[in-house]
Amino acid sequence: MSARYGIVLFGHGARDARWAEPFERLAKLLRAQCGPSTAVSLAFLELMSPDLPTAIAEQAAGGCATITIVPVFVGIGGHIRRDLPALVDRCRAAHPGIEIRCVKPVGEDDAVLDALAQYCLRQMGDVTPR
Amino acid sequence: MSARYGIVLFGHGARDARWAEPFERLAKLLRAQCGPSTAVSLAFLELMSPDLPTAIAEQAAGGCATITIVPVFVGIGGHIRRDLPALVDRCRAAHPGIEIRCVKPVGEDDAVLDALAQYCLRQMGDVTPR
Repeated sequence: MSARYGIVLFGHGARDARWAEPFERLAKLLRAQCGPSTAVSLAFLELMSPDLPTAIAEQAAGGCATITIVPVFVGIGGHIRRDLPALVDRCRAAHPGIEIRCVKPVGEDDAVLDALAQYCLRQMGDVTPR
Repeated sequence: MSARYGIVLFGHGARDARWAEPFERLAKLLRAQCGPSTAVSLAFLELMSPDLPTAIAEQAAGGCATITIVPVFVGIGGHIRRDLPALVDRCRAAHPGIEIRCVKPVGEDDAVLDALAQYCLRQMGDVTPR
């Protein structure tokens, strides 16, 4: 069965291959929860491959009719405000028959920020009195 | 009452001042939950201020005896493996009387990765059948 839906986890990328390990773990978590109807891929802005147009093209070739891009960025600057919209426009132009959605970056989600805060608090639990 | 404990949220930094808004929201969440015995500061690797040594020096001057650095990085490459340990060593050398702890980056925490996965799944909920 080919996937009808796609998720692309979009990250910055880095020189060190190990940089992407948390993204790979996240993709694995999603694959376990989404089932075979959803393809989960990684894509990177720079320094790593595939880039976003390549990841989108692969999901499109695999049969995905709707692709959701999730920017896995906590900080929200020029990469998200300028580079990403340009890339998304390019992908949409290349695949006019496919719905390509780009959701807000993880750093804008209240539940994600709350999980980050809880992580900090757990780390502080070792040193501060309750 | 001066803070006895410090948390420094350490991020990459960027040119766009708005980049740091999620970090500021995270700091605000932590301040609300920690109370007055804990100072919460931001620090950046590059392109934004303060840098880590400045943030640590300010918390030390404010009376913090134990300071916990939380690397707010999802990807874990050279900045975390090389740049951060060198900065932490510098901070410890500058403040030998203060306990400076550096915890693992947020991208290594299972609960944070789970929150990221849940965010993706919520975003997919709009398009995929359940």
